[in-house]
Parts: sequence; structure tokens; C-alpha cells
Amino acid sequence: MPKPFMDENFLLHSQTAMNLYNHSKNLPIIDYHCHLEPKEIAENKRFLNITDLALGGDHYKWRLMRANGVPEQYITGNASDEEKFYHWCATIEDCIGNPIYHWTHLEMRRYFDYDGPINGDVAADVYAHCNKIIQQDDFCAWSIFKKFKVEQIGTTDDPVDNLEYHKQMAANRINDPSLPLVSPTFRPSKAMNIEAAGFSEYVQTLSKISGMPLQSWDDFLAILAQRVDYFHMAGCRASDHALDPPVFAECTSSEAAEVFQKALAGQRLSQLEIDRYKTYLMLWLGRQYHAKGWVMQLHMAAQRNNNTRMSRLLGPDTGYDSMSDENFSRPLARILDGLDISESLPKTILYGLNPVSDMMLATMIGNFQGGGMRGKIQWGCPWWFNDTKPGIENHLVYLASAGVLSRFIGMLTDSRSFMSYPRHEYFRRIVAQTLATWVDNGEFPNHQAKLFQIVEGIGYRNAQEYFGL
Amino acid sequence: MPKPFMDENFLLHSQTAMNLYNHSKNLPIIDYHCHLEPKEIAENKRFLNITDLALGGDHYKWRLMRANGVPEQYITGNASDEEKFYHWCATIEDCIGNPIYHWTHLEMRRYFDYDGPINGDVAADVYAHCNKIIQQDDFCAWSIFKKFKVEQIGTTDDPVDNLEYHKQMAANRINDPSLPLVSPTFRPSKAMNIEAAGFSEYVQTLSKISGMPLQSWDDFLAILAQRVDYFHMAGCRASDHALDPPVFAECTSSEAAEVFQKALAGQRLSQLEIDRYKTYLMLWLGRQYHAKGWVMQLHMAAQRNNNTRMSRLLGPDTGYDSMSDENFSRPLARILDGLDISESLPKTILYGLNPVSDMMLATMIGNFQGGGMRGKIQWGCPWWFNDTKPGIENHLVYLASAGVLSRFIGMLTDSRSFMSYPRHEYFRRIVAQTLATWVDNGEFPNHQAKLFQIVEGIGYRNAQEYFGL
Amino acid sequence: MPKPFMDENFLLHSQTAMNLYNHSKNLPIIDYHCHLEPKEIAENKRFLNITDLALGGDHYKWRLMRANGVPEQYITGNASDEEKFYHWCATIEDCIGNPIYHWTHLEMRRYFDYDGPINGDVAADVYAHCNKIIQQDDFCAWSIFKKFKVEQIGTTDDPVDNLEYHKQMAANRINDPSLPLVSPTFRPSKAMNIEAAGFSEYVQTLSKISGMPLQSWDDFLAILAQRVDYFHMAGCRASDHALDPPVFAECTSSEAAEVFQKALAGQRLSQLEIDRYKTYLMLWLGRQYHAKGWVMQLHMAAQRNNNTRMSRLLGPDTGYDSMSDENFSRPLARILDGLDISESLPKTILYGLNPVSDMMLATMIGNFQGGGMRGKIQWGCPWWFNDTKPGIENHLVYLASAGVLSRFIGMLTDSRSFMSYPRHEYFRRIVAQTLATWVDNGEFPNHQAKLFQIVEGIGYRNAQEYFGL
Repeated sequence: MPKPFMDENFLLHSQTAMNLYNHSKNLPIIDYHCHLEPKEIAENKRFLNITDLALGGDHYKWRLMRANGVPEQYITGNASDEEKFYHWCATIEDCIGNPIYHWTHLEMRRYFDYDGPINGDVAADVYAHCNKIIQQDDFCAWSIFKKFKVEQIGTTDDPVDNLEYHKQMAANRINDPSLPLVSPTFRPSKAMNIEAAGFSEYVQTLSKISGMPLQSWDDFLAILAQRVDYFHMAGCRASDHALDPPVFAECTSSEAAEVFQKALAGQRLSQLEIDRYKTYLMLWLGRQYHAKGWVMQLHMAAQRNNNTRMSRLLGPDTGYDSMSDENFSRPLARILDGLDISESLPKTILYGLNPVSDMMLATMIGNFQGGGMRGKIQWGCPWWFNDTKPGIENHLVYLASAGVLSRFIGMLTDSRSFMSYPRHEYFRRIVAQTLATWVDNGEFPNHQAKLFQIVEGIGYRNAQEYFGL
Repeated sequence: MPKPFMDENFLLHSQTAMNLYNHSKNLPIIDYHCHLEPKEIAENKRFLNITDLALGGDHYKWRLMRANGVPEQYITGNASDEEKFYHWCATIEDCIGNPIYHWTHLEMRRYFDYDGPINGDVAADVYAHCNKIIQQDDFCAWSIFKKFKVEQIGTTDDPVDNLEYHKQMAANRINDPSLPLVSPTFRPSKAMNIEAAGFSEYVQTLSKISGMPLQSWDDFLAILAQRVDYFHMAGCRASDHALDPPVFAECTSSEAAEVFQKALAGQRLSQLEIDRYKTYLMLWLGRQYHAKGWVMQLHMAAQRNNNTRMSRLLGPDTGYDSMSDENFSRPLARILDGLDISESLPKTILYGLNPVSDMMLATMIGNFQGGGMRGKIQWGCPWWFNDTKPGIENHLVYLASAGVLSRFIGMLTDSRSFMSYPRHEYFRRIVAQTLATWVDNGEFPNHQAKLFQIVEGIGYRNAQEYFGL
Repeated sequence: MPKPFMDENFLLHSQTAMNLYNHSKNLPIIDYHCHLEPKEIAENKRFLNITDLALGGDHYKWRLMRANGVPEQYITGNASDEEKFYHWCATIEDCIGNPIYHWTHLEMRRYFDYDGPINGDVAADVYAHCNKIIQQDDFCAWSIFKKFKVEQIGTTDDPVDNLEYHKQMAANRINDPSLPLVSPTFRPSKAMNIEAAGFSEYVQTLSKISGMPLQSWDDFLAILAQRVDYFHMAGCRASDHALDPPVFAECTSSEAAEVFQKALAGQRLSQLEIDRYKTYLMLWLGRQYHAKGWVMQLHMAAQRNNNTRMSRLLGPDTGYDSMSDENFSRPLARILDGLDISESLPKTILYGLNPVSDMMLATMIGNFQGGGMRGKIQWGCPWWFNDTKPGIENHLVYLASAGVLSRFIGMLTDSRSFMSYPRHEYFRRIVAQTLATWVDNGEFPNHQAKLFQIVEGIGYRNAQEYFGL
């Protein structure tokens, strides 16, 4: 007899697993890395309808619709929201084995108390059902945060951002301490990408926002340092870099200065010059992060904007990214070593998009652990296309096999949507089942206190400690 | 208690799995990509004996014999067919966990009603048993096709081929509509491989077969266009390219023409010139395929003819190929994008030989889905060394986790042997068990109509629709 | 109900698995590749205490302690042995899912009859318990060998070694034939690494130890040939190379001579010169190994000494190595082909450190099998970070799926510690369970004689035959 479809024991296959999940299911959520809009958070966004909430900006779902033959008009085009929702429901019913199948059903259960399977036949009913709830006064961003016990949210922010919405949210939180702490994350992509169009203009914007003159390389570094200070004052405790791919080329300050001046002068840069600049700035920023006690996040192996035609139509982050298979174990080690050698390697999280780097990253972090800090270097949780049942299982098994799983800081949503919190539930269920499998097979003692400690750590406390919350 | 060895519930571990397999087991077979000889098909080949049928040309089996210490004399040498068959049986008994162990036993069951384990002890009996059946009047290529309900066969053909056997088979089929449709596949390897010895001669052959003069690059393209037309008239609906590895180097028509003329003049080409030529021709051919509504198949990551000594003795395709670990996500994306940008990307199947590219390919296809076509871009079924139980399971799980499994066009044999049809059975059993595991674990509703639709789609209907049969 | 923690059926989940393990558990151990000190073997080392025995030199364990936040003082520093042991116990309790968790508990059971879980709370008791046993007269290296039925040990030795301890051990063995055969392994890293500091000095040492003049490249090769002879006389039957990474660049003898002379003259070498030298010497040495009937071991994809600061403090092999993701399928094939083409490819074992190369290596070996030798080319057992439960399971499944598992020569410890023999038990249990899974699922006949033959082969006899013991 098949188990009932997604009941309370979803993904849990033994009493041990159920016990472990029950112990972790009510823990608060620390969502230390996401792409929610600070403005929408601060202004307590309300939603037009279920299409706005569930499909707006969610390119994970758009990709499935395209693969299933839905015309673009019903995905990002001018079809009605009800039509779009219908096509989504008629797509998801075919997505057996896809995590979004499960996320969607968890969303319906947890946000809308709707327990049935989603498919084209029920789309109209579900549309009406959800919209009725969405239109209730108490359905808004903040009520979602409270429902899911979201304790902290790490947004992703450009150094030129004035962080006004973070400040506004901090003020909101004085009135209502049950709101989450919303922390900015320093993401200096545009300062790093010296080869990109618009670099000079960006540098001028940085100068303007900081109120500091920009005439030299030293001025530029001073401005960046000021932005780090500014972010720190606004509660930032983490940075984020997309290394597409990581590069390492020895570079002195004067060499970096020279490349910088060439770029501002509009001269063409060689690949070696670009790599040198990026290496120098990466190490320089790493030392700033270390001095502030921040966490440095490095995201690797994305291959972005593969579809020129659609990127032109819809812009970035619309479902045209995938995994690169480039090698990067050597430059990555050099970057980390370049900071460690001067004892200025910050706490660091390494995220790989292509699972081929799983064991490389799981063993790389071991090279730089130390200093008496628990889990200082982390192999970050399954990212994006890896945020799947097999992806999470593999992550836990590989991380355990190469290091200390109990120190893992666990899950984040990385999401643009207010509908993603059930992904933490999904993750916690898989954690519970994975640990239980070891216990049930006699590979770890059935020692409840220790096991509860581990699931609490991975589900909540390790991130809390790691980010100093 | 162990399950009985390979009984009717082989690979099926629950009632759900059995139901799903029972629903798919009698579906016709669409074997859209193989390497059977059109002549042998058209002439309704008969077989000398079981060695001829089971071991002739089957380098998968030869590799196992070599690894097991069988001298080459008993593999490809001048030993008797009975001796060769004995050594094969004495090898396969040691091949626990190898798919060929299962294929061999399925072959014996389905072709010869022989149910026992194969090993050296029974070799002589099995040899006699099979040969008796093979010598019966009704044992021939066509009866095999009918027994396995083979509805379509895609052969692999050079553009210089006159396709006489395809025409002959089409004529046969008028008399006997129960014969399979045998479609040629356009494989222009020799036109692409400008760096290979014999390129000029090949170009002359193309000119001759097409009856068109060859004096310029434009002539060459015109000839290729004619061959595409010719193949299309003969029922071709697919092309096939081996990208070993994929390359992408921007190239104008006049640059390609220049490289082409250098090659004809016998001048040495630089790697960049070769890459430019291949890029130009790949994109040009892709546009032809798109215009015809063909499927474009790209095979990647084979590393061929690794053993010079044996390749000299036995020629290519004799068991000396393996997996390359070269990176190719960036040039592959550029090729697909180069076609998509002008809205001339055909239906495309991407096959990777090294499983390290699994998730890269599973996510790559998502970048180019669209146009309202269901499953337009496919991550092709587990190829060659991946056509194994774990390979198929991983393929299904990864494909499902990154896209819409229900749109998968499923299995092919890629085989040189008339004995390979049980591989479709093997695949369908694994599909049934994989889907059943999700249902049995409560991860998908136990909704029989939908599940039957999915197994029918993967087993038969998706390929039927994709190839326009 | 969970299974009892690590009881006699640890990792065995069916009667079939138990039967297969019971058949293999008392087989002798052939530990054909390790890093034990010949001096400590020959002199029958005794141990100070459990910290000396269990933690001395064991950088696998040090890495876990660092990741768990233990200050370096308690790992490699000047803390007391009891404090170090406490921190180790307090770390291992958190290492759920790590093979070292299991190894540690197996060590405690098999060496010290201590069955309880290890954690910080019991550290003091366990410390006292173990030390009492360690101080008994009969607790020493040799008694360990005998307890675990260690029949052969392959150490790792530099060509300049005079092998005095191997000779001493051979003499010991005349008096006590129950001692293991201790065979040197020829590891010419310093002769290969022409780019390393100290190459000239090393070459002079080679000249001195061999008693042969060194004035030319031919002299150098003659000296190496003499060292091969010398090792062979001392019982060496295997060589070992770390290819970090494999390179292949065509090179004549006179080109190699030129590079060699440049290096001795202290001139800077280009990468191409280095690669040519290494290619030439690799092929030249491979031919020597073939002539002697030796086994050639190639280790690939390690990325060593990633942490400069700690490497300076502690030296190499202290826990700062990890996996490289460099590609090497093409140069590796060229090396093997370069030997095979002259029919001088020795028996060869390929070890990859990064599991991304698993299927590439599993299929690469198939290209060079032959000559009527069973399992001539081996994909070596899961190495270092892959010596884990999932690593071993994957190895067995992938090897089986691409070749003849029954010919696998099985496990080795690769260890610097006298505490590692339970890893053979760990491996044998996983082999038993993996084979049993196939049998229990009806994928292989429940034919006990054949299954016993396979587990005996993988556990003992294949290595015995392969190394000619």
C-alpha cells in the first residue's frame, strides 16, 4: 500500500524520523540569504492574487511551464492571471519527482489549508480559494513571517544602496519585536566586474552615494571601506560574491591601480588584467569582512543568461541560467589561502551550483578550518537547482562523510518569493529522515539528546551562532 | 528470502511498480537511434548461430571478456564460434552488477525461452539450444522486429549514402505494413571533421553522389542542402553529431570559406580555424534541420580509439572508447544560443557520455525550452556506458528534479545488434519502479490515470509525437 | 525499532549479507599500499598511549577536530596526550555519518574490546582503559599484524632508500613466519618532479646511494634502473606515482636529456619542458616496471598543501590537502597508450581522488585490458576522502556497471597508523551487503559457491594473484 500523499509524515519513514522532525518542526527560521525586495518587506507587501504570490518572479516555475509546452504569453506575457494560474496547475501535475511539485503542495497546505493534488482540473477552484484568503486583511508579508517564525532575513544589496528600507524595517521592529530582523548583505558584483559595461558609471555612483571624491584607486578602496562601514552600521553581517568562475592572478596594489585607471579611461583590458584586478579586490574585501567579523559567501559555477533572445526580451533572472562545468578548485584554494596566510580569512560559505563540485567543496573547507571556531568554513546548503530531495540528501551524506555534519548551518531559501518558507520544512524533513536512516541502520546510537542537539543545530542554532544573532 | 532470480517481477518491488510495468510492457518500441545496418534490415538478415547473433560486433561484451582474462583469439580472433560462446558464458557469470548480465539473461528468455543462469557450465547446452531455434525458418531480423513490436528504427547514415536499403525497406513495408518504419539519420561527421585525413576526398564523393559541381564553399553548402533534401525525401527526420568536444568560435561565411579552401588545398589548419569552420557549419546545418522540422542530436564526451595498438588491429568501434572529462557547458550553450537567436533552433537532444555532465545537461535544456512545444529540448537517455540500472535511475531522478520528466522521450538502443530490444524492457521496468517509489513513499498521488499517462509517454508516445510518427 | 548500534551485523541487512560477510571476515589481509614506517614495523613498535596510537600522525582525525572548533594546541600542539584524547572523543561524538566515526568504534571494539559509544563524557575512562591494554607486554605492532592476519604490507619508499628495515623484517620473518611479508614500493616522486626545489641535490643523492657516477642523462636512467633492480631484489613488486595532474607531451630521449641538463644547471624550465620530461620518464619507468612484472600505481586528482600558513607550521600531510577538479582523461589515456603501443604496459592501478572521475576511470581501464590477464588494469579502491560508506558503495556499483567486479583487487588502508586494519572489515561488510542487495532483489542468482568465490576474490585472492604472492 502506498503511503498517503504528502501527509504529516511526508518524507519520514520511521518512528525515529518522525521524532526527529517533530523536534525540529517548530524551530524559528533563519533565512540568511534571499532575494526578497527590502521595500516589499518594509512596506508589508500585500498580494493581488495567487498568481502574483505564487508565480510572480518565480523563474523556477516558469522554466517548468516552458518545458511543458506552455506558450510564453501564459508565463510572462499578457494573458490574465487566472489563465496563467491554470497553465501553472496544468503543468505541475506532470512534474513528478520535481521539488517544485512538493513545494507547491506544501505552499497550498501551509498558506491556504488546501490539501488536494494540484492539477488543471482544480485550477479554477484553487484560484478562487486562494484569492479569498489572500484578500483577507491579515494576509500580508508580515503575517507570513510570523506564521513561519521567521527570525532573520538576509537580503542581497548593492553597495550603492542607502538601505532605507532596512532602516524602516528596523524602526517597524521597535514597535513590533515579533517581526524578523532584516539584515542587508553586501554584494559588490558591480565593483568586481570591471569588464562589464557601465563600470565607470557605477564607480561614479559609488562616489556620489558615499559623498567621497573619486580620483584614485586609493579613493576607490576608501569608498568601498566606507560602504562596508555603512552596511555594518545597518546590521549587515555578511557579504556575497558570484565567482563566475573564481580566478586567481597575483597582483600588487599598484598593478590593480593601473588596471582600474585603464578601465575608467575606457581602455580595453586583457583577461589577465581583469583577473588580477578581481584577485586583488577579492582579497582586499575579504580582509575588510574579516575585520568586521562578517561572513563571506562565495557562489560558484553558475552559467548565466544563456539565451540571448529571451534575455533581451525579459532581462536577467527569468529562467535562462544553468550550471557551468568549469574547473575552479585551484583558484578557489588560492583565494582562501591568500586570506588565511595573513590570518584574515573571514568565516566563509562556499556554494557550488554544479553537483560535480560537491566532494571537492566538502573537502576544500577542511583545508581552512581552525582557529578554535566551530564550522568556520561551510559548504553552503544545496543551491538553486540542487535544492531538491536528492540534492539535499547527497549534500548531507557527502558533508557528513567529509566533515562534521553537526556543525552545518543549514538551509536558506535564496528566493525572490514570499511563498518559499515551506522549503525549510522540506529541508528539515529530509534532515530528520537522513539522520534517522543512520540510527535505524545501527550506524549511530539511538541517543535522543545528541540527535535532538544535531537537528536543532542544523535547523536553527548553528546559523544563529554563525551569524551572531 | 531473496526474490527469485529475474522472474516476471524483475526490478519491480511493489504492486504499484508491477501495475505500472504491466501497463507499459506491451507498448510498441520506437528505436529512434541505433547502428543496425540498413542492408541487413532490408534483406531480412538471418543468423549463423548464437555467437553471430549475440557477440558479432558487440564490443560491450568484448570488453568484459578482455577484462576477465579471455585471450583475444576467443573474442575477435580465429577461434571457433562455439569456443567464443563458451568464453562469453564463462565471463558473464562473473559480471555481477553489470547491465550486460541482465541484458544477456533477458535475451535468452525473450529470444530463446531459456530461463536458467548463463555460465561456463551450461555454455555447450545453451549453444545447441539457441542454434536450433536460430535455424528455424521463422527466425530472422523481421520476425524479431515483429515479436518486439518495433514500430520505427532510426539508423545512422552518412550524407553520401544513397539510402537504397531504406527505399527497399519502404517497398517491403508496402507489402507488409507490420514491418517497422526504417528512417535514415543524417550524420555528417566527415563533412564536419575538416582536420581528418580524407576530407578532400570525402568532399569529392559528396559532389559525385549529389551530381553537383564543387568549386566553392557555396557549392559545398548547396550540396549539403541537397543531401538534407534527399534524406528528407527518404523519410529522415533526425540528424546526429558527435561533438568530441563541442567548440564555439565566432565565424563569418567568408572566414569559413577560407578555411575550407585551405583544407582542400592541403594546407595545415590551426585549431582556431578548425573550431571556426565547425562552428559555422554546425550553425548552418542546425538551421537546415530547423527548416525541415528535424530533430538535432548532439552526442558529447566520448573519448575514442584510446588504444592505438588494438585500433590498428581491429579498427574503430571494437571496445577501446571511454569517457572524456572535458568541459563543454559554455561552447554547448553558445551553439544552442547561436541557433535560438535567429529562432532557428530545431528540436534538440543532448547526450552526454560522462555522468558528470548529468545535472549540467538537465539544466541546460531548460535554457532553450519554449515556443509552446512540449519537451522541445531533451536530455537524451542514458547513453552507452550509462545504459545501466544506476545510470537509468539517476537519469530519471535528475531529469525529474530539474525539469518535466513526463515529457521525456525515453529509450533507444544505440546498438549494432538485433539482440538489443530487451533493453527497452529493462528501461521500462526501471521507469515503473522509479515512479512507483515516489508513489509508494507518498511523494506523488496514487492516481492511476495520470501515472499510466506518464509511463505511456516515456515508453512510447512522447517519442512518437517528437519524431512526428 | 532501530538496529542495535554497530553490533555483529553492522552494515549487514539480510541473511544473505550476513552469510557473505561471515565467509569473508576471517580472510587474511593483504594491505598492498600504506604509509607505515618500515623502521617502526621492523622494530616492532610499541605505543606510548592511546593518543599516540590513535591520533599520532592521523590527519584525517585532525581535520575533524579543527572543523569542530578544537584549538590547534589540542590537536598538534603542546597540550597533554590526555587532553588531546578528550578533545578527540568530544569531537567524534558529533561526526554522524562520517566513516571515521565507524572506524573509531571498530578500533575500540577490535583492539580494546570496548563496545560503548565514544564521546567526551567517557573520554577519561576510555583513555585509562586503552592505556592499560597498550601497556601490556603483548601489545605491539607485530601482535596487531597477527591479530588481523596481515599477510602482506606494501610500504611507500623513495628510490634512495637502502631498504634496511625491509631486510631486517625479512630476517625477522625467517624466525617467525607468521609475520607479514613487508614489501617496499618504488615511489620516484623526487625524480619526476624536476621543477621542485632540491632536484639537483636529489639527483646527487641518487648517484651516491647507487654508487654510480652521474654525468649524463643516460647515467641518470642507468641509476634509476639500478634502483629498480635493487628494490626488486628487496621484494618490491609495485611502484607508485602521484600525477598531480597527469601530463602528456611527446618527448624524445635527447629532448628529455636537454631538459634534465637545464634543470641541473639551475635554469628555469618552461611548463612544456617540464611536461616533456615527465612524459618521457613516466614512459621509461613504465617499461622498467613492465619488464619486472611490477604493478604500476597512478594516483590522481589530489590538490596538496592548500594552506600555506599551516603547511609552514606543520609540514606536509597534516590535513591541508583536498580534491582537485582538473581534467585528465586525455593525458592519462596517452600515458597508458604510450606504453601499450610497445606492448610494455604493466599491470596498472588507477586511483582518482575526486569522485567525479569515477565513471571515467571505470571505463578507462576497459581500454587497456587484455593479453589474457584477469583484471590487468584496475580502478583502484576508494582512496582517502572516498574511503567512506557511500564512496565504497558507489565504487562497487560503478565498477560493476562498467566492468567485471569479480576481478577487483579490493581494499588497502593507505594509512600512516597501525590502527587502520578495521577498515578492511568495514570494506568487507559493505562488499557483502552490496552483493547481497543484488541477490536479495533477484538481480543475481542466489548461488552460494559463486558468491563466496566473488567475496573471497575481492577480499583477498585477487590481490594475492595480482601481486604474485
